[in-house]
This record gives sequence, C-alpha cells and structure tokens, in this order.
Amino acid sequence: MGVIRTKPSEPLANRLATLRTEFTSLIAEFAPDSVAIEQVFFQVNVRTAMATGQASGLALAEAALAGCEVIQYTPNQVKDAVAGWGGAGKEQVQKMVQVRLNLSTLPKPADAADAAAIALTHLAMSPMGRQLRQAASS
Amino acid sequence: MGVIRTKPSEPLANRLATLRTEFTSLIAEFAPDSVAIEQVFFQVNVRTAMATGQASGLALAEAALAGCEVIQYTPNQVKDAVAGWGGAGKEQVQKMVQVRLNLSTLPKPADAADAAAIALTHLAMSPMGRQLRQAASS
Repeated sequence: MGVIRTKPSEPLANRLATLRTEFTSLIAEFAPDSVAIEQVFFQVNVRTAMATGQASGLALAEAALAGCEVIQYTPNQVKDAVAGWGGAGKEQVQKMVQVRLNLSTLPKPADAADAAAIALTHLAMSPMGRQLRQAASS
Repeated sequence: MGVIRTKPSEPLANRLATLRTEFTSLIAEFAPDSVAIEQVFFQVNVRTAMATGQASGLALAEAALAGCEVIQYTPNQVKDAVAGWGGAGKEQVQKMVQVRLNLSTLPKPADAADAAAIALTHLAMSPMGRQLRQAASS
C-alpha cells in the first residue's frame, strides 16, 4: 500500500500538481477498471472540506478521463461494509482491514488503511464483486 | 469571455473530467504566463466548499503542471483591487469590470465577470503589472 505525499512547505498548486502526476502514473501503471473514492459529506470545517475537495476532484477527473468506473462511498458505507456496522470506530475498521487482507500488522499510515477499506467496500458492493462471490460459492 | 459548462445531469467524475479537458485546452491555446484563481475561504456550506475545491483543485494543478505562475486572490482582494473597496457589492465589481474592459454591457454570465475581475486584480497586484504601469507612466 502506498500513500502519495507532498511537501507541506510547497505552494498549494505545486502540491496538487504532484498529486495529479503521481495519481496519473498509478492509473497508468495499474490500469484499474474501477476507482473508489471516499465521499466526505461532513467535514470538521470549511477549510478541510475545500482541501479534501481539491484532492478528490483531481482523482475523480483523472480516473474518469482514464475510462475507469468511478464510485464514491461515504464513510458510513465503508464502516458498514468493512466492519459490519455504520457506527464502527476507526480502529475497528483498521483491524478488519488487517484481518481481511491478512496483514501481520495494522496497515500504516492510517490513510493507507482508509484507502484499503474503501477498496474492500467496493469489492463488497459492486455488482462485479457480487457476481464473483456468487460464482465462487456456486 | 467564455465559461466552461458541464451538464448537471452527468456524474460528478465526468463533469470534472470535462472541466479538466477544457481547462487544459484553454491553457494550451492561450499559453498564459500566469493563472489567477479565486481563493474562497468562507463558503455558505461545506458541500459548496467541497464542490468549489474540486473545481479549483483541477485548475491549480493543471496550471502548475503547465508551468504557469499560479496565484490565488480572496474575494476581498478582488473587490478592493477592482472596485477600490473590499466591501464593494457584486454589482459594483461587475460595473467596474465593464468600465475597465470597455464593454458595452455588463459581462454575462456573472461567473465570467468574476473571472475578469480576478484577472484585473492580478494585473493590478502582480509585480509585472506594477512594472508595466510604471513603464507606461514614465
């Protein structure tokens, strides 16, 4: 699991440019059919919402431009799908990610665990995921 | 003056992809040295902040990737630079844009007037703008 990092000391536009370049490379490298992104409705504050929007907007646009299916899941959908309960705590979700992916330790950083949880949510909720499970159990 | 429009009926990722494609074409067509973008601190609500962030993030990233100087101005800076007063109303700013750009009518839609106001702000505030005015008046 990898996390794209940018330098907080850099100007915002340059940090977003780095994010865009690295995200585009990842899409080119892995050629995913689907890209699942967290949909955040309620942020602590407007400034956080703006920053989250700036980063997620890039991912949404690039994924769509690459022809990927783009899906957004709310935090509650992720908690529900991964930990079985929409009110599950962050640590429960991380623990479930560890178990489901058979990792020896909790995934770190927490952002990587969140990303893995969203991927697991998509696997659980997408029609293809459902069909694969049906095929596997038949 | 042009405004990039996307269909509200389309999925968010597709709308952002359209915005990204058209913005990239505009940058390629006009090869600007500088791109000035409104910096919105206080939005009516978190959802608006998120949407504004998603659109502005694309512009910030693409402009930086194209090697442009990227500058953000707050609404108050724009009002101050264009109408001479940070507390100026939207209509006063639009009227000043019309006068400054020698337009026969108020620029429409209002978003285009806002964009023109931001460009005028950059012209007034950037060092190059200052130098040009000094050169012209000497």
